[in-house]
Amino acid sequence: MFPFLRDAGEDAPLESQPKLKAHAVTVFVMACESATQLRKTGDVKVREATLRRLGATHVRAGVADAHFEVVKTALLDTIEGAVPEMWTPEMKAAWEEAYDQLAAAIKEEMKFAAAAVTSSEAAKKKHCFI
Amino acid sequence: MFPFLRDAGEDAPLESQPKLKAHAVTVFVMACESATQLRKTGDVKVREATLRRLGATHVRAGVADAHFEVVKTALLDTIEGAVPEMWTPEMKAAWEEAYDQLAAAIKEEMKFAAAAVTSSEAAKKKHCFI
Repeated sequence: MFPFLRDAGEDAPLESQPKLKAHAVTVFVMACESATQLRKTGDVKVREATLRRLGATHVRAGVADAHFEVVKTALLDTIEGAVPEMWTPEMKAAWEEAYDQLAAAIKEEMKFAAAAVTSSEAAKKKHCFI
Repeated sequence: MFPFLRDAGEDAPLESQPKLKAHAVTVFVMACESATQLRKTGDVKVREATLRRLGATHVRAGVADAHFEVVKTALLDTIEGAVPEMWTPEMKAAWEEAYDQLAAAIKEEMKFAAAAVTSSEAAKKKHCFI
């Protein structure tokens, strides 16, 4: 399902997928920062340069909406498993909202990145073939 | 260094130490929750039952102050590696403060847990040998 895991083989155990683990830690930290911002300011802000890079890398990796849902479930399940006695509906809701807002910002940026790729490809075609 | 890793062997790669990985995720989530609380209320609160369990398990595992420092460094390095472009002195300070307050609460609880173990052992000895 995840093109960036193709090297390792999708059926390989998590332990042998360093890219997936690195991605998981990044999701974790960014969702945590987003949750903190949300509870403090009521809004999620991601630095412009970071968001632009995230938009571009997610477009390049062929990420679709369904992938965001899979990662969200994995994130929530991991947190619940790590601190089962702390896990409350409020805590789940806070992490969900943080993740959803972060995912929405990345998806929005992906539209711009995809449009930029398309127009750049069109420009290349124009240059080469017309 | 970590007694709870003795089964896996201390030189085994991280990938083959599921207990260390599970512990890392728990530290992550608890430090994140602490950071959120700190930024929101200026204080770190851990549920009484959770803290009691953490105190007891850390005493049983023979955890010393140096272990807290090792885990702190690992946590900060992992976060920095996951989001290098977001890593600022402010972010580092926020995570450090969250971790330090959490560690202080666990260390304090460990004193009570250790005292309880000692008095329970003394009681057993008294019961058995006098």
